Amino acid sequence: MNGTLVIAGLGPGDEALVTPEVTAALADATDVVGYIPYVARIPPREGLILHATDNRVELERAVHALEMAAAGRRVVVVSSGDPGVFAMASAVFEAVERTPYLAHVDIRILPGVTAMLAAAARIGAPLGHDFCVINLSDNLKPWETVERRLRLAAQADFAMAFYNPRSSSRPHQFARVLDILREDCGPERLIIFARAVTMPEERISVVTLAEAHADMADMRTVILVGNASTRRIGPYVYTPRRSG
Amino acid sequence: MNGTLVIAGLGPGDEALVTPEVTAALADATDVVGYIPYVARIPPREGLILHATDNRVELERAVHALEMAAAGRRVVVVSSGDPGVFAMASAVFEAVERTPYLAHVDIRILPGVTAMLAAAARIGAPLGHDFCVINLSDNLKPWETVERRLRLAAQADFAMAFYNPRSSSRPHQFARVLDILREDCGPERLIIFARAVTMPEERISVVTLAEAHADMADMRTVILVGNASTRRIGPYVYTPRRSG
Repeated sequence: MNGTLVIAGLGPGDEALVTPEVTAALADATDVVGYIPYVARIPPREGLILHATDNRVELERAVHALEMAAAGRRVVVVSSGDPGVFAMASAVFEAVERTPYLAHVDIRILPGVTAMLAAAARIGAPLGHDFCVINLSDNLKPWETVERRLRLAAQADFAMAFYNPRSSSRPHQFARVLDILREDCGPERLIIFARAVTMPEERISVVTLAEAHADMADMRTVILVGNASTRRIGPYVYTPRRSG
Repeated sequence: MNGTLVIAGLGPGDEALVTPEVTAALADATDVVGYIPYVARIPPREGLILHATDNRVELERAVHALEMAAAGRRVVVVSSGDPGVFAMASAVFEAVERTPYLAHVDIRILPGVTAMLAAAARIGAPLGHDFCVINLSDNLKPWETVERRLRLAAQADFAMAFYNPRSSSRPHQFARVLDILREDCGPERLIIFARAVTMPEERISVVTLAEAHADMADMRTVILVGNASTRRIGPYVYTPRRSG
């Protein structure tokens, strides 16, 4: 009477980027669990229950999904992008740690196209050399950690990808990020703001750090910063393989 | 009489991880270009020419693909994983820079599931917090750069993903990587060796740095290193969202 818990990545938004593996898991599910806009992407059908919940309740959502799976349901937790990159996979394992009576549930994670790679593909190959990936939100870590990682990433000459750059509850932090980058990478470094990547309302802009300002980002924006060798070529931006 | 050049990511190996967008581009192609084992994944059909070439000729391959596209063909360059992560996208833009007479070719990049995210999904959520991605090959950068980036990544407490960890032409360098990591991250840090991810011959092992040795990696292995908070839970490995 064991069900299954699948944590599936829906990709950045375009249905043509959902893997067949994820499509098959959704077709077989009895329950789909996730944040409202991601669950809204799943077409309703007979025998499928959609459980849409608000943001910032990831742990409760994960426990609920584990409980349903333990009761024999075939549950799919949906994330946008890839579930392992600042998304539901870690939250589910945190929930498993807190609920040892649910630790027997069989968990499978289905990878997806994460936003930074979809954004990079739209503009060229800005992440074509060593890079780092930082969640700019300080909901779950001290802001000092974000600043320290930015400084070290600049020193390593990593290209960078930023998730969750800015929200209404912390409007000033992203301006501080831009200041740090200008100090450590110089004003000519390229930065890419990619909003709603692969969706009809997609908007991508490439500017230098000198031209960048905080209003260019919101919570639907993923940001890419080039390394010292990243350059424009025609409409594209790319990082050569020989950087560093 | 303009053709198109599409650079497509085939994912890590399992056909269920190829996006519908890539499948559609391949169905429309007149020519598929790539490294022998990746082109071998494309089923032959009438009207499709397969151009398989050896490794280490990425630039020649890219120029050839651009030339065919300029001549009106519908060319797809295939990479495994995601084309923007240590794969063909940067090589194509390098080729564009060297062949200005081909700069008018329309280039589109189709993202894919990159090996590190497929490997992470197989074992849990080891990249569930800030992380960095390093190509350990020194074919295209000085070895000193690799060492410097490893040290800074450890200092930032990034989880890490390594591509191209080891080849027969440089057997000793990966042992040096393990020494650096042991020095900077301590012997208890978790490291994951994921070979041939999602293929029938897949083999994944999780050990501590104290237990790791260089023979555990080859060129078909992607490696993940946890951050200071990464832990095991049952058969899984995950990094909590509150690290750092």
